[in-house]
Amino acid sequence: MAVPRRTSRDIRSESRLDVIHAVLSAGETTRNEVARSTGLSPATVATVMGELMAEGIVAETRLTVGRVGRPTATLAMNASRGRVVGIDVAETYVRAIMFDAALNQVGSLEEPRDEHEVAPIVVVEGIGRVVDALLATTGTARADVLGVGVALPGVVQGASGPSVVVPHWGWHRVELDRLRDRVGLPLVVDNPLRAIATAELWFGRGRECSSLVTINLGTGVGAGIVLEGRILRGATNSAGEWGHSLLVLDGRECRCGRRGCVEAYVGAPGIQETLREIAPDHPLVDVDTQPDFIAALAAAAGRADAPSGGDKAVQETIARTAYYLGSAIADLVAVVNPEVVTLTGWTTWLLGEHLLPATRAHLVDQAPGRSAADMALEVSTVRGNSVAAGLATIALERFLADAGLLTTQLPTAL
Amino acid sequence: MAVPRRTSRDIRSESRLDVIHAVLSAGETTRNEVARSTGLSPATVATVMGELMAEGIVAETRLTVGRVGRPTATLAMNASRGRVVGIDVAETYVRAIMFDAALNQVGSLEEPRDEHEVAPIVVVEGIGRVVDALLATTGTARADVLGVGVALPGVVQGASGPSVVVPHWGWHRVELDRLRDRVGLPLVVDNPLRAIATAELWFGRGRECSSLVTINLGTGVGAGIVLEGRILRGATNSAGEWGHSLLVLDGRECRCGRRGCVEAYVGAPGIQETLREIAPDHPLVDVDTQPDFIAALAAAAGRADAPSGGDKAVQETIARTAYYLGSAIADLVAVVNPEVVTLTGWTTWLLGEHLLPATRAHLVDQAPGRSAADMALEVSTVRGNSVAAGLATIALERFLADAGLLTTQLPTAL
Repeated sequence: MAVPRRTSRDIRSESRLDVIHAVLSAGETTRNEVARSTGLSPATVATVMGELMAEGIVAETRLTVGRVGRPTATLAMNASRGRVVGIDVAETYVRAIMFDAALNQVGSLEEPRDEHEVAPIVVVEGIGRVVDALLATTGTARADVLGVGVALPGVVQGASGPSVVVPHWGWHRVELDRLRDRVGLPLVVDNPLRAIATAELWFGRGRECSSLVTINLGTGVGAGIVLEGRILRGATNSAGEWGHSLLVLDGRECRCGRRGCVEAYVGAPGIQETLREIAPDHPLVDVDTQPDFIAALAAAAGRADAPSGGDKAVQETIARTAYYLGSAIADLVAVVNPEVVTLTGWTTWLLGEHLLPATRAHLVDQAPGRSAADMALEVSTVRGNSVAAGLATIALERFLADAGLLTTQLPTAL
Repeated sequence: MAVPRRTSRDIRSESRLDVIHAVLSAGETTRNEVARSTGLSPATVATVMGELMAEGIVAETRLTVGRVGRPTATLAMNASRGRVVGIDVAETYVRAIMFDAALNQVGSLEEPRDEHEVAPIVVVEGIGRVVDALLATTGTARADVLGVGVALPGVVQGASGPSVVVPHWGWHRVELDRLRDRVGLPLVVDNPLRAIATAELWFGRGRECSSLVTINLGTGVGAGIVLEGRILRGATNSAGEWGHSLLVLDGRECRCGRRGCVEAYVGAPGIQETLREIAPDHPLVDVDTQPDFIAALAAAAGRADAPSGGDKAVQETIARTAYYLGSAIADLVAVVNPEVVTLTGWTTWLLGEHLLPATRAHLVDQAPGRSAADMALEVSTVRGNSVAAGLATIALERFLADAGLLTTQLPTAL
């Protein structure tokens, strides 16, 4: 029987993760509060807190003496335990965010990237440079860094760790070794979709519900899937590639090589293509940078209630994009049937408020039966770069796993 | 924290399920063999066997005395513990299959059904009649029936049990009460997709791998999804409705009301529609009954290597269907990324060998990266009606749960 079975070790690990989540959510809390919010027994909470305090992850911040009984200890994540870094290697930039061990943001740094430059040596050096600069600007000693997490598109996880890493960059295991050497710190790599799922699980709706999908809208699009409180990785670590599922068989060419993918319609370049189809001579068709285009589209849409009636081509572009997006999310709901779907990524931040109402209407209309009627579709409450935040969290999880505190599904350290 | 956590009770339950699976797979086995095949400790296996024997689920069939040591007991499922019935209420028939408690088929019975007749009272009476007839023909006393499982399309599971049952039939909780009264035996209802997933998990590839998708091809199409050895139900018990995800935005009308669904292309009526598009005057376009049409298509395709070169329109229909099916399975692989995909259902039995090679090629071509390259796509080894077999198994699981032996996700008994 190759079917995996949970062991009591996994359960201890899950209890620890629940306690960490509870402490993180609360900011400051007590053992009793954690027992209440997690449903764990007070004895289990006491044991787990002891382990986490021994490792310096959680610390007592003060003792409150009441009229009767023993004093109550207030507990919090121990921010000074060290720092973690999450890095989003996107098409057009590399963004690195540093967090303390309580996952408060300490600093961040972005470098532009030439999207046509995918030679491993250049990308590796770019990542290394950003890490060095972030350590310098935040005055962080290397010894204080618990881990660095790097999001790379298309990490394929094998039994012995990641192998093919970025197929369309020609990256393999050897380039990972180079990256580890250049960064010179405990390193994990994972897929951006696993990153956004982790961010949603730790900081967003994952705190309240056990099955959710979080959708990243940017140049590329994809879905992070959480089922029963666990991230769906898939047999080859490539679950969630909803951006490359079909919207239209034999439709628009997608940069992945397939035709008709969701991404070719609701990725930023796809949205620009929709505008081009509607109004080939519209000035926004020629905006070069994708975020500039999406921002300009949102600004033009914002004038919809102007006396002139606004820019019809822009309104039609947004209406069609909402139709595409609602239809494609309905497919995801048909297959996975989550409790909630959240939207994240820079297209969401810029254009989300204009897209959301019509997207929701199309979704409810098209999802099977009434499966989307009571389902929440909302902008993620995890703000900022959730890929970087997610990868920093994965690096922290990896650190906790190496300390023997977690055993849940984690990318193999390099 | 609403994220569910496994308890030690769940783990005991999973160990019991693993032991049952191991005994079922082996036919006859020993405690040592079960420990080896499940990876459970001999002590755990001994404890679990004791519980299963106390409940009469497993029995010792003989004792083998070796030269040294204690005699070895041979164990098997206790077929005489009772019987379970699984019922597939399909568009055009009601099929009931009876199994003994070792899940050997004891008898089966099919009644035709008028697909336009969905009045609850008629459907309920039809199901009741089939159960009565099956009990009579197999000489089974009502007291010997451990449970009856009925597959109904679209069961919506709420916290307090199933509510809306068959939306497009107008069935609600009250019709379920009527069904329970008419059948007069311990009853569970579930969705056909959960049934085929259960059948694959107990009798097919689920014995060897932990994440799989099994696709039902018939009048309707859908996917049963197993992740980490557990069936994906979804927030409203409607996961796996891949048949109603998009193949072509704004494409063919689907009977669900949406346009362009996968089912409208690879369900049996969809395949006939493809032939109609290719050759409107082809004689097979007018074949009335769907299984007759698919059987005739397979027979005509079988003559492909005849000297005449065979029926070009039929070959083109099969080639397009394989393209549709491979593309749609690629979407499922993109999102879920399973280890294996199996095909089941009567269209598969009739046409699978003609469809599979080209479907596999399209799938590998279109799934993201290399995610389908090493993935198995195969006809399910679970033969016969896997909806009925799956529901009978769910009824047995329900019986075991009521006996306190299982706690895994189960449909609520009525």
